[in-house]
Amino acid sequence: MKAIIQRVTKASVTVGEDQVSSIGRGICVLLGISVDDTQRDAEYMVRKILNLRLFEDENGRAWAKSVMEREFEVLCVSQFTLQCILKGNKPDFHSAMPAELAQPFYNSILESMRSAYKPELIKDGNFGAYMQVNILNDGPVTVELTSPAGPTDPKQHKKTFACLNFLDWQRAKGKFMKLSEELRRKAVVFTQAGKVCREVLKHLCGCPQ
Amino acid sequence: MKAIIQRVTKASVTVGEDQVSSIGRGICVLLGISVDDTQRDAEYMVRKILNLRLFEDENGRAWAKSVMEREFEVLCVSQFTLQCILKGNKPDFHSAMPAELAQPFYNSILESMRSAYKPELIKDGNFGAYMQVNILNDGPVTVELTSPAGPTDPKQHKKTFACLNFLDWQRAKGKFMKLSEELRRKAVVFTQAGKVCREVLKHLCGCPQ
Repeated sequence: MKAIIQRVTKASVTVGEDQVSSIGRGICVLLGISVDDTQRDAEYMVRKILNLRLFEDENGRAWAKSVMEREFEVLCVSQFTLQCILKGNKPDFHSAMPAELAQPFYNSILESMRSAYKPELIKDGNFGAYMQVNILNDGPVTVELTSPAGPTDPKQHKKTFACLNFLDWQRAKGKFMKLSEELRRKAVVFTQAGKVCREVLKHLCGCPQ
Repeated sequence: MKAIIQRVTKASVTVGEDQVSSIGRGICVLLGISVDDTQRDAEYMVRKILNLRLFEDENGRAWAKSVMEREFEVLCVSQFTLQCILKGNKPDFHSAMPAELAQPFYNSILESMRSAYKPELIKDGNFGAYMQVNILNDGPVTVELTSPAGPTDPKQHKKTFACLNFLDWQRAKGKFMKLSEELRRKAVVFTQAGKVCREVLKHLCGCPQ
């Protein structure tokens, strides 16, 4: 799951001629859900969005207070285009969670945000509609958040597989033990260098660390 | 280098009471330069920003045309906060290129964009100033771009080092050959699983592939 957080002086959403919601000071969140996202990603994202220190405190000290601590507003808008993989210059959105699954998931994220904060201070767009989102970015201050599981990147999967195939080749030469199916599954999910290396090597060499 | 591209109906920048620039249809680019960025990252970013297909063609086919092909405008604003590492809930910006280096680099990126497109269609903010950036996000459509070298992530470095330390531990047990200083340097630069695994293992096992 990816979120682009913009600190705003004000923000609003218009569909056709109708303004469907608006906020004053606070944050505008554009939220992109990937096919791989789970409840764990949602919980991480809600926690970070509400607690990220993007505002100054009463003494003017920067990066001191969160949107909740300042009692500011949140405008959250679903944004599948954040789950974009470039194929040359053409965006491909197959990593985005399909709308029929993303909509209830997205609504549950909004509900979690409302439960964790004040329901009346969390505003929304119209899921799936063609909207004009008017963002008065204050600073500007823009931060990108990625949930722990991270986005699905087919290129990354390909690289991970190439790495595993290489290990298989080594194994065939009798240098390594067989990779378990469980590890193979895990390694595809892990997208970060450290994790893949450590897990793969831990398994291969039996290192307790 | 990171860029957040928002497709816009219009966008403008205000400093104090003065509107310093404005565009009609096109893209608003928030650009975050990291300490590690080089000319190569700049070239990649300029190329992608101008050629990314975010607009429909004359027949209404989506994701068909770039900002250049439609002869739309670009508003580019420097945004160091994109080079943010979270320490808990506090953003840390030590990965951002310091302003005295970032400003000439950023200006050269703008110049490259103007040379590659039409100078009068590339607008700018006021580097380093406190601005209000008014973005009328059309769709919304938001895409994040990361240049090939990618952002510096201390956590990632830590993981890569942990991985290398583990390999050293294996080496001490006589299982692997010594890691060269060159590879050690490279492995810190590589941030993606596949690259680290393949390079490290290629070196360790002498695989030609």
